[in-house]
Amino acid sequence: MKVYADNAATTKLSNTALEAMLPILTDIYGNPSSLHTVGQTAKEYLEKAREDIAECIGADAKEIYFTSGGSEADNQALRTACAIGARKGKKHIISTKFEHHAILHTLNALEKEGFEVTLVDVHNTGVVTAEDIANAIREDTCLVTVMTANNEIGTVQPIAEIGKLCREKGIYFHTDAVQAVGHIPVNVSDMNVDMLSISAHKFHGPKGVGVLYIKKGIPVKSLIEGGAQERGKRAGTENLPAIVGMAAALKEACEKLDTNTEKLITLRDYLINGLKDIERSRINGSLEHHLPGTLNMCFEGIEGESLLLLLDARGISASSGSACTSGSLDPSHVLLAIGVPVEIAHGSLRLSLSEDLTIEQMEHIVISVKEVVKYLRSISPVWEKIKSEEK
Amino acid sequence: MKVYADNAATTKLSNTALEAMLPILTDIYGNPSSLHTVGQTAKEYLEKAREDIAECIGADAKEIYFTSGGSEADNQALRTACAIGARKGKKHIISTKFEHHAILHTLNALEKEGFEVTLVDVHNTGVVTAEDIANAIREDTCLVTVMTANNEIGTVQPIAEIGKLCREKGIYFHTDAVQAVGHIPVNVSDMNVDMLSISAHKFHGPKGVGVLYIKKGIPVKSLIEGGAQERGKRAGTENLPAIVGMAAALKEACEKLDTNTEKLITLRDYLINGLKDIERSRINGSLEHHLPGTLNMCFEGIEGESLLLLLDARGISASSGSACTSGSLDPSHVLLAIGVPVEIAHGSLRLSLSEDLTIEQMEHIVISVKEVVKYLRSISPVWEKIKSEEK
Repeated sequence: MKVYADNAATTKLSNTALEAMLPILTDIYGNPSSLHTVGQTAKEYLEKAREDIAECIGADAKEIYFTSGGSEADNQALRTACAIGARKGKKHIISTKFEHHAILHTLNALEKEGFEVTLVDVHNTGVVTAEDIANAIREDTCLVTVMTANNEIGTVQPIAEIGKLCREKGIYFHTDAVQAVGHIPVNVSDMNVDMLSISAHKFHGPKGVGVLYIKKGIPVKSLIEGGAQERGKRAGTENLPAIVGMAAALKEACEKLDTNTEKLITLRDYLINGLKDIERSRINGSLEHHLPGTLNMCFEGIEGESLLLLLDARGISASSGSACTSGSLDPSHVLLAIGVPVEIAHGSLRLSLSEDLTIEQMEHIVISVKEVVKYLRSISPVWEKIKSEEK
Repeated sequence: MKVYADNAATTKLSNTALEAMLPILTDIYGNPSSLHTVGQTAKEYLEKAREDIAECIGADAKEIYFTSGGSEADNQALRTACAIGARKGKKHIISTKFEHHAILHTLNALEKEGFEVTLVDVHNTGVVTAEDIANAIREDTCLVTVMTANNEIGTVQPIAEIGKLCREKGIYFHTDAVQAVGHIPVNVSDMNVDMLSISAHKFHGPKGVGVLYIKKGIPVKSLIEGGAQERGKRAGTENLPAIVGMAAALKEACEKLDTNTEKLITLRDYLINGLKDIERSRINGSLEHHLPGTLNMCFEGIEGESLLLLLDARGISASSGSACTSGSLDPSHVLLAIGVPVEIAHGSLRLSLSEDLTIEQMEHIVISVKEVVKYLRSISPVWEKIKSEEK
């Protein structure tokens, strides 16, 4: 049995998105910047997609900038706020210890350019509070960036509260909503955000495309200079097939949000019930405010990578954390941030579901994880040590 | 009759590219960074595409960095060379007056950051010589960037000679080969280039994807920070369907280069023969070293935009210059750079062909252009003035 349970890494393109893309790939091939009919037809599809996406997140079409994905959107958001901050002599940024590397590595680059960064600690529930952010705010803070939902443990942050705080203080607020959009309600107005990043391939849209929402009135900084596309703020011929596919996928995800959420919680709860009694296991991050389809667990005495490989041999695709850092032997920075000890963080498993999975497939995961954990522990000197110390 | 003659703006996706993309869009949906089989299968396609593209341009697969397109590749190339230059205290860049805006606008940004830029004049043939570049070189020159083929007039530059000069002087050399790749032979080794930009949608590949070739040993600067994709130099989940489509399109373009060139020259020569006798018209740029499928002409006494719109009404898609700057009322910076007077530059027409066009379609262009130019002149006060001054 095949079970793709790594939907936080990427999702399968939906039929809805594919069907929206096909006519664009074959017939609507004009350059939206061209003045002729072939180009202007393409432009109509481009602007319709922009409107559809804007509507899905409660934004105005003029606030939607198409990018090549979530990472580019994150980079451009941070560069935009910091360019404004620098002009005002404000060079302090607040973020959290468990952001995606598209944020953390951009912050590293900004530090080298003279910005100061405060990374707020994360509670062991996997949540950062508005109070935590408030305590870090300084006179020279130009930007707060906190992810909407964590990509490894799925915890959802109190974005609206943090946004309200930032607005009161006159500080720009960005959220990396890459894992959230299409999975939980996302409305830029309710969330009090100034900037928000989206990646299509996380909600059954195509790869290679994303959105940066930037609130009207904020002077946007280009990351890619050149032509006048995206109102002069993102050069390069628009990736129209992907943009149209993204709009179709997002509309579908938003329309089906309630039923999908219900399905996903049923599936995830089946996993939790099946796995929670494994000895010396833990669920990472509180499930109180959480993505419906993500479950992150640690199993003491085993290596996450071995667990993944043996699950893969049983047809199950899962992950130990972020796909973007696979191949690294370091334990997850997210798990360390929420206080999981290093030796336990090594034995992590992220299962991220899709609404098209079934209870039978969940059963296969539960049986497989139990058997594989048991097997790996039977050959693990670490586990032997844990057990001998118990006595 | 429909005639799409704006292939320098963008091309129709080839069937070869589409057929290569479809299985990736539907079945090979894994994230190439994921350790499981679904991800590793995607990674195999990614690396095969990288090898195919490398082979097409005479590079090593490790020298290929996938980007979201030509503009991003241009930006990253310039940023890479300038980061190295800045570390050595070398902050002078040489380019030309008729580069694409992805180059010129990035150079503007670099000037604001303390770099000095020399834009070399272009001869009225539409060519910049190695001698022109040699004369501009200074002790502190860190980068020379000259496009392989101009996007508006199609003239091909003596890249190998300029590259040889730069190599002798120890200066990095980048070329924007967006209009050249797939249309004329491009080999990074023969051309003596250190960096080269490619855009897939200019050779019947998909939109939203390109390549930056960077010669081994050059420390690449990230434009998009984040995950470890592209050997840590370009973050973001890889756009695999587009990458695979690009590789297929490029392979096909390279395989058919000779026959396509022959077809294109036949078609273009038909246009030249049909249009060259129009009174007070000129062909912009020497045809001696030239893209086979591009023809740029000016017709005195008319506005290019009106010409385009009336051609569009007859089913002909053409352009007055770069699609990336459409909507601007300024005359083409390329035409001004090669010495076309402002008032004449306004009446420009770029016809950029594809090998699937026919002589019948060329005939339709010739007849239409002649009629439309005649009509526009009949209502043009400028033309009236020109004619009265002739007397």
